[in-house]
Amino acid sequence: MTTLGLDVGGTKVLGVVLDDDGAVVAEHKEPTRRDAAGLIARLEAVATSLQNEAPGAVALGVGLPGLVDRAGTLRFAPNLPGIVELPVGPTLTEALGLPVRADNDATCAAWGEHQLGAAAGADTALLVTLGTGIGGGIVVDGRLVRGANGFAGEIGHMVVDDGGIPCPCGRSGCWERYASGSALGQQGRTLVAGGGGRRLLELAGGDPAAVTGEHVTAAAVEGDAEALAVLDGFADWFALGLANLIHVFDPSRCVIGGGLVAAGPVVFDPIRTALSEVRLIAPEHRPPVEVVPATLGARAGAIGAALLARQAQPG
Amino acid sequence: MTTLGLDVGGTKVLGVVLDDDGAVVAEHKEPTRRDAAGLIARLEAVATSLQNEAPGAVALGVGLPGLVDRAGTLRFAPNLPGIVELPVGPTLTEALGLPVRADNDATCAAWGEHQLGAAAGADTALLVTLGTGIGGGIVVDGRLVRGANGFAGEIGHMVVDDGGIPCPCGRSGCWERYASGSALGQQGRTLVAGGGGRRLLELAGGDPAAVTGEHVTAAAVEGDAEALAVLDGFADWFALGLANLIHVFDPSRCVIGGGLVAAGPVVFDPIRTALSEVRLIAPEHRPPVEVVPATLGARAGAIGAALLARQAQPG
Repeated sequence: MTTLGLDVGGTKVLGVVLDDDGAVVAEHKEPTRRDAAGLIARLEAVATSLQNEAPGAVALGVGLPGLVDRAGTLRFAPNLPGIVELPVGPTLTEALGLPVRADNDATCAAWGEHQLGAAAGADTALLVTLGTGIGGGIVVDGRLVRGANGFAGEIGHMVVDDGGIPCPCGRSGCWERYASGSALGQQGRTLVAGGGGRRLLELAGGDPAAVTGEHVTAAAVEGDAEALAVLDGFADWFALGLANLIHVFDPSRCVIGGGLVAAGPVVFDPIRTALSEVRLIAPEHRPPVEVVPATLGARAGAIGAALLARQAQPG
Repeated sequence: MTTLGLDVGGTKVLGVVLDDDGAVVAEHKEPTRRDAAGLIARLEAVATSLQNEAPGAVALGVGLPGLVDRAGTLRFAPNLPGIVELPVGPTLTEALGLPVRADNDATCAAWGEHQLGAAAGADTALLVTLGTGIGGGIVVDGRLVRGANGFAGEIGHMVVDDGGIPCPCGRSGCWERYASGSALGQQGRTLVAGGGGRRLLELAGGDPAAVTGEHVTAAAVEGDAEALAVLDGFADWFALGLANLIHVFDPSRCVIGGGLVAAGPVVFDPIRTALSEVRLIAPEHRPPVEVVPATLGARAGAIGAALLARQAQPG
């Protein structure tokens, strides 16, 4: 028995075929299309390619970058502004003749990491995805928290600094303005604007506006002291928000994933240090929380989507 | 079949006997004792009084003001500084010969409101208790969220204003420094210190340091414009934190309880107004969240504790 999983990112659609043991037996990738009809056609095409490569899939899971309701409709996608109220699940079910489960991408990734990755064995776990924004997926007592509408896990819009940096969401001081990949890029540009960050500027081809989070991590890997200091400040913000969520959920394990973490210890070490310095309530009376990097990498969302779709099947 | 429920507050221990239908058939109240041996003796005495009044209880639930682990040990209680690592559940089980379930007081109150109060029928619900601090209880898919250690729901220590008001927890900007009963008292004292708040000062007997949150609500009930303005500011902070939790959990209903809410519309109306003005992500794509006052009042914790204890029993 195989299951298909698709993960829709801002730039690409990644599809996998998962076998009974959770192994990826086929994979396919295409650019994302950013209009409603185009996105549906692209998802159909990737699913059909996968079916041709490895026939016999019993279900399809789809991870989508936005608010996905429990009926499988993508209600709103901050990075795909042309797409609202798109019934991805029902439309693909009809087009492909397969049961389809659509859910938020970070929620899918959380389930993937919980079933086959870094959160395996942790009954109560939090997955934080550090990308352009901050996504979240929550597992409580071995079950995925989806929320009344399916919108749970929008942890990036937790306000941690009232009146702070304005957010496109309409408020100010949201966590992802301080501790996401785009925030790290902004922190790098601020350094350069202040006359520092010579190495960052070189990596960005001399254009101060072109400095990204990747330039910061690349310079830090080289040992650039200014980039390392930027990452330390970034890690402090990250730890602040994670401590909030630890107080709210009391997870035994936090798994940190997303593109930024792929940069390795240069990002993860400052995060661990900052977390060890954050004061939780009554630290001497609680076991330490494990904080570990995700292990499924860029496939976490597609694998998790496939696992969720399989779970919904009888037998 | 009856069940006993005790709720330990900072000043009193409230005990109830609950019958099969969830009706309170007996009630008993005594002052809290603030040392470990005294507290255990007091809990035993209240439970014994209740057993004498209504014999035959099959289990006892206890709500405690602090971090309670899954074995029923009170690890840490911020307002009972002499008490740490007190095995309340195991000790009472032995002393009373009854199965005992001990849990956090706000968690118990959440379960009471979910089973018999304002959260009934809401599969995913959040209970916020506005007292000296801010307590929280979370229900997801009809189940109580307890966390890996039993410490879930410490929502009052979510940082909402980094670098803001210092908190006894060791950090700054925790939500309960802005939106609890003690925060409201502080906001009243700040008004008086600035030369305003004449009516607050009268109600406090002329002593600026004696102004409390109750004085603010009392003056507001009289229509005092300055007190009403303080409550508006308070409500804005409350709404900010609640919106964070709505983004994280996506509850269909939020139930607001605790002493402050007992003041009625003068507190609840500004909260509702502030919440209607908070911008959630994609408001036009999500159903509104119901925000309602708790209905079990001061008994919520004791009733919820009894219900949790009963639930743990076979049959």
